[in-house]
Amino acid sequence: MTPYEIVRRKRDGFELTPAELTAFLGGYQTGHVEDSQMAAFLMAVFFRGMAPAELGALVDIMLRSGEVVRLDAVPGIKVDKHSTGGVGDKVSLVLAPLVSSLGVPVPMMSGRGLGHSGGTVDKLESIPGFTTDLSLDAFRAQIERLGCALIAQTDQIAPLDRSLYAMRDVTATVESIPLIASSIMSKKLAEGLDALVLDVKMGNGAFMTDPDGAEALAKAMIGIGETYGKRVVARMTAMDRPLGNAVGNALEVVESVEALEGGGPADLREVTLALAAEMLVLGNVASELDEALALAIAALDDGRALEQFRRIVEAQGGDVAVIDDTGRLPHASVEREVLAARAGVIAAMDVRAIGMAAVELGAGRARRDAQLDPAVGFLVFSKPGDRVECGDTMAIVHARGEDSASGAAAALAAAITIADSGDESSLPLLGPRIVAGP
Amino acid sequence: MTPYEIVRRKRDGFELTPAELTAFLGGYQTGHVEDSQMAAFLMAVFFRGMAPAELGALVDIMLRSGEVVRLDAVPGIKVDKHSTGGVGDKVSLVLAPLVSSLGVPVPMMSGRGLGHSGGTVDKLESIPGFTTDLSLDAFRAQIERLGCALIAQTDQIAPLDRSLYAMRDVTATVESIPLIASSIMSKKLAEGLDALVLDVKMGNGAFMTDPDGAEALAKAMIGIGETYGKRVVARMTAMDRPLGNAVGNALEVVESVEALEGGGPADLREVTLALAAEMLVLGNVASELDEALALAIAALDDGRALEQFRRIVEAQGGDVAVIDDTGRLPHASVEREVLAARAGVIAAMDVRAIGMAAVELGAGRARRDAQLDPAVGFLVFSKPGDRVECGDTMAIVHARGEDSASGAAAALAAAITIADSGDESSLPLLGPRIVAGP
Repeated sequence: MTPYEIVRRKRDGFELTPAELTAFLGGYQTGHVEDSQMAAFLMAVFFRGMAPAELGALVDIMLRSGEVVRLDAVPGIKVDKHSTGGVGDKVSLVLAPLVSSLGVPVPMMSGRGLGHSGGTVDKLESIPGFTTDLSLDAFRAQIERLGCALIAQTDQIAPLDRSLYAMRDVTATVESIPLIASSIMSKKLAEGLDALVLDVKMGNGAFMTDPDGAEALAKAMIGIGETYGKRVVARMTAMDRPLGNAVGNALEVVESVEALEGGGPADLREVTLALAAEMLVLGNVASELDEALALAIAALDDGRALEQFRRIVEAQGGDVAVIDDTGRLPHASVEREVLAARAGVIAAMDVRAIGMAAVELGAGRARRDAQLDPAVGFLVFSKPGDRVECGDTMAIVHARGEDSASGAAAALAAAITIADSGDESSLPLLGPRIVAGP
Repeated sequence: MTPYEIVRRKRDGFELTPAELTAFLGGYQTGHVEDSQMAAFLMAVFFRGMAPAELGALVDIMLRSGEVVRLDAVPGIKVDKHSTGGVGDKVSLVLAPLVSSLGVPVPMMSGRGLGHSGGTVDKLESIPGFTTDLSLDAFRAQIERLGCALIAQTDQIAPLDRSLYAMRDVTATVESIPLIASSIMSKKLAEGLDALVLDVKMGNGAFMTDPDGAEALAKAMIGIGETYGKRVVARMTAMDRPLGNAVGNALEVVESVEALEGGGPADLREVTLALAAEMLVLGNVASELDEALALAIAALDDGRALEQFRRIVEAQGGDVAVIDDTGRLPHASVEREVLAARAGVIAAMDVRAIGMAAVELGAGRARRDAQLDPAVGFLVFSKPGDRVECGDTMAIVHARGEDSASGAAAALAAAITIADSGDESSLPLLGPRIVAGP
């Protein structure tokens, strides 16, 4: 069957066989399938979706396109967490030390930020000296030694996903459930994990803004996990507001350290603890979520999680002095308050616009090769449902210059809708929990 | 707006503005829009279609990508015919001389065969010396002098359509009504015509096998014509059988000469006369179809059409002696009869399979750069609804060798279904006539 015929069959809604998918994707890697044919295929998948067997074959081909880490030498059930991405989402920085401090190994490979959403790797790299660029051998060795490593995805992991993602990114084929699910799961399965917790964002700052779509994405990833004998649990969480207050790389490290000290914003702590409890149950350290939650609260409040973070930062070359004195992190010279222009209730926040305003400041990337400024960003204090008086400080912009500060403050003010009391509608911070169906 | 955003908007069903389409298609011509982005766009158009204003803008951009012939110096209303393509469709070879012999100028640019369907240019080139490779100046000059020229599409006409077509051909985005309609109409509008008759094929040998799709295609092309102030009339005709008996380039020239002499197969004559009558009315040579039909019959039967064909062949360098003695045309050495294996009625013919068997023999192209053999092909005598006795000759294969003759004979026999009487179902030779709506 020619590449043309495979694209045509997908276009016309037929289910492709694993052999057809292998021929097509393998042909793409060897240059026998043209970019235009792959782009047409991806757009046809956008419209037609994929049957479970097709999705399984796609994941398998992407996974096998690179190396698969084996962590058999590490005792215990290896559990990772993946978030579908959002604004202010620094959960991984708190969660990975917390869960691994309780004896569950966490092999975590993360991405960089792109578009309105930030990336764990960028946040970690705002710690002077911290490297996320470990070899797979060093990754494995650190997990054996400390129970956790926080690294960037390497070229050896699922290179086919990397080239497909680059193409999806220019051809408007990102927002497809089977393509998102296969991209995430092929990379996660290559990490060597045994179980996975998904943090599926809901709301206008999520990639998948429609709740049904977010749930379908979770179910697709759970299904893929099952095929590989990996337990996957998904938790929907709100992204109709930034998570925590800080948006911007060094600002988010400061907030993460506060959370690791048992403090920090309540919403960040609540989401982190809920995901930690899931990981601890999957990791067999607790048998019930309540029990796991109590363990996690204790490890945050007694300093074990912070101590584990210190070990990880040190192991990966970071300056541990910033943990005790976060004033040593990069700091922006200009601060600008964003004031409420009227009294009322925060009715809605355009989280995507807030994320894009951070990108504009230099905290994120509009293009893959853009340079970041670790110091810039926002602290956002007002959240949907909060009451504000006229002149209240809703947020503070941290910027390198007056012009960019003004632009960001205006964008932020425009992204926050203040209404009369009673008009607000916000999502629950913790939404449904989704597990493998019966 | 970036190329990405334009693809995304099309994907999500928004109507693109002419400025957006101009930016995207212009960007493709200058290399700023990548092949992958164009392929994703074409697949999105396949699924989403195009609104009339989008279609008009697309045609305009494709038309303006090359030269537009001006035939103002030629008196009269210039009328062309376009067929959506089929097997044994040699109508243009009879129709263009016939209509132009009655005073209606016919500026005809045709394509080469691809896939199961033949092409007028290939058929004409089986006449020794005949060139279809005229410059646009020579094309214009011959129409001024003779009222007709039969040429191949040149690189100067709608080059953007040429590159889009090449991409559609590998990305499974050929079968899209707006893409087919814009491709045909941009080339036809560049010829300098004032009016157009469309021969829209129905049945299993047509590109658009679904009758509703064929009608929608006709309506799309009529709509585009209206936008440009060109009258367009469409006639649906049957392609659940080859048209006439001959399939193959020189064999079809022989049959065309017979038709120009007032003979030839009845179905070829009937379709040609019906299309001629439409062209004569559009060309203002007759006011009613009945009157036009009578004029066309007379010109076929008294030799005027043949005489005009002779002038065209001579003007384009062809050997006119073949018109008086078609035995001078290339001739295959092997003839093989295809016999009915049982008595009954022809219930169905797989016309696409018959076309592909001709390609296999060398009469057509599976790939754009394939070499043709002008001599090979079939004469098919049995048509749907005909009664056959066991052992009757249903067809004769003309081949270069015994092996290819055997293969073609077997393919032909397999493509013709003989059933008990009463099981046959065939399309009417002349189907609905479609004109601009009220």
